[in-house]
Amino acid sequence: VLGTSRRVLLVTDENVLRLGYAGRVVAALEDSECRVDTVVLPAGEATKSPETLMQLWHRAVACGLERGDIVAGVGGGVIGDIAGMLAATYMRGIALVLVPTTLLAQVDAAIGGKVGIDFAGVKNALGAFHPARSVLIDPAVLSTLPRERVAEGAAEMIKIAVMFAEDLFADFERIHEVDTIVERTDLIRRSAALKAEIVSRDPTEHGVRRYLNFGHTIGHGIEAASGYRLAHGAAVAIGMLAEMRMAVMREICPPSLEDRLRMVLDRLALPGIVKGLNPELVYQAMLGDKKRSGARFWFAVPATTGGGTLIPVSDDDARLAIAIALGRNEWYEFSSCMAQI
Amino acid sequence: VLGTSRRVLLVTDENVLRLGYAGRVVAALEDSECRVDTVVLPAGEATKSPETLMQLWHRAVACGLERGDIVAGVGGGVIGDIAGMLAATYMRGIALVLVPTTLLAQVDAAIGGKVGIDFAGVKNALGAFHPARSVLIDPAVLSTLPRERVAEGAAEMIKIAVMFAEDLFADFERIHEVDTIVERTDLIRRSAALKAEIVSRDPTEHGVRRYLNFGHTIGHGIEAASGYRLAHGAAVAIGMLAEMRMAVMREICPPSLEDRLRMVLDRLALPGIVKGLNPELVYQAMLGDKKRSGARFWFAVPATTGGGTLIPVSDDDARLAIAIALGRNEWYEFSSCMAQI
Repeated sequence: VLGTSRRVLLVTDENVLRLGYAGRVVAALEDSECRVDTVVLPAGEATKSPETLMQLWHRAVACGLERGDIVAGVGGGVIGDIAGMLAATYMRGIALVLVPTTLLAQVDAAIGGKVGIDFAGVKNALGAFHPARSVLIDPAVLSTLPRERVAEGAAEMIKIAVMFAEDLFADFERIHEVDTIVERTDLIRRSAALKAEIVSRDPTEHGVRRYLNFGHTIGHGIEAASGYRLAHGAAVAIGMLAEMRMAVMREICPPSLEDRLRMVLDRLALPGIVKGLNPELVYQAMLGDKKRSGARFWFAVPATTGGGTLIPVSDDDARLAIAIALGRNEWYEFSSCMAQI
Repeated sequence: VLGTSRRVLLVTDENVLRLGYAGRVVAALEDSECRVDTVVLPAGEATKSPETLMQLWHRAVACGLERGDIVAGVGGGVIGDIAGMLAATYMRGIALVLVPTTLLAQVDAAIGGKVGIDFAGVKNALGAFHPARSVLIDPAVLSTLPRERVAEGAAEMIKIAVMFAEDLFADFERIHEVDTIVERTDLIRRSAALKAEIVSRDPTEHGVRRYLNFGHTIGHGIEAASGYRLAHGAAVAIGMLAEMRMAVMREICPPSLEDRLRMVLDRLALPGIVKGLNPELVYQAMLGDKKRSGARFWFAVPATTGGGTLIPVSDDDARLAIAIALGRNEWYEFSSCMAQI
């Protein structure tokens, strides 16, 4: 996959190194006669900074990385994003190989070319589209992943299934335990393949790829308003239910699909609402969201499990959706499962 | 061209501001109901730094630039490169509009999507491909351009003509004064259009676009070895003659074309050799050039004025070409016009 006799700058984090996954990739690369330099970054979102990017630029120059060489990212979404940002900007773009070690990265973050760093308090404020040359997915590494982080990946798998693939969604309806997901390599493979297909049809997110934002307009708003204490998967689950509610109210999406989605998320212990957030903060965070274009919001929602649609959302309706997500809507309370900030 | 009611972050430099060109663009944008914020950078290559990029990122966030907004670069190649790097990396890429104010930028730098900054002493070590949405070329601004900088643009116009367009090259053979060039808007338009055509056929430089590197392998080497005191246009002129010499020696290029090229460059007072550089420094700079791939060098040379070819160049032949460029080859001295470092 990687070719031989090339130089590889391998970017990973402390956790992935400690669990031995980075070492295994280094050994495999050296067996292929690649010369490997390794950079170990602190684990966590704070690593996606301009300062880290500057550090990686220095390392790339120092180890003599050339245009035909490779940046490899071994880790979760954070590592993929920062390694990808290095590959996208070094010598006008060099090859990127990703070895995602979380479920979220395997089925979502590593696929589709979005790379980036956080800046001035805005997640992914800086970034590029730079698809990985190869994404090497080994579900065996998921055995050490905490349950909350499995649920995080599951939320994105369910999102793509409910939007695009009735058969995959029906398979999720038969799962009653979040732990089961990591054993279901067939579901991981199908979700990753579906994501790859969507993004290959629309790499720069001007068409069908926008439907992958289902749950993410409200989701990003509550995630940001929580100061990122709410997990991304939980935020997406809550966002999907609030956005789908708007679609049902407008008779764009059938109520039966809403019921099915709530049931699937509930069984995986993904929350339907979050308590304790200030709705005005959520609204302000949504205003700052780069997915907004012009004066109003757009929600990407499934019309059926066979395809999505974009619905324009007024300020008032956006506030209503926020109230639903925060469990503050007096005439609508639907979720048994709740996150608390 | 730009649409209306959008926010524009306009990047320019002190010289362009002082000459009034930036103000005219701001006025035109405000007439189109764009809201314009202006950043004025110091003139000169030192502006293409990570520090400037960081400053622009801050300004973009501070003025609330959104995904649908525009970065405008009004200036020469340096401004286009740094403004382009901002546009390429902000929110995974936003629209870029360039108003090039030097001949070099109008016929070459602004066209083709190469953006970048210098890093660790390497020119354009960091960068991306991010083509401008529009390039607005007004040859009237060239009236204030110093003669050396006109010659710089002329070198690139001649390069593309000798490689791709016999008729355009023949027109250059009829020019006896460098000052004439800025009045010949037809030549500027045809050169820019030819560059646009080549890069649209090969945006990422894996095919025909590589022929635009004619003169640039040796050229970059001597430019870097001079500590960038040698002007880019002079370096390219010297590089073209040295690289074409190799092609003539291998009977790839007819000697008549070499004679014609030398005559055209000579009339525009572009140098054929440069004295006072250390050949070993040139060689080392070429080794560090990101256009090298693997162990040997490649020269892109015209086989005729109708098309180019890539020739592999051994270490020994590269040193011979360097000796030719430095006027140190005892059995070959051809140029009446000489640069001195």
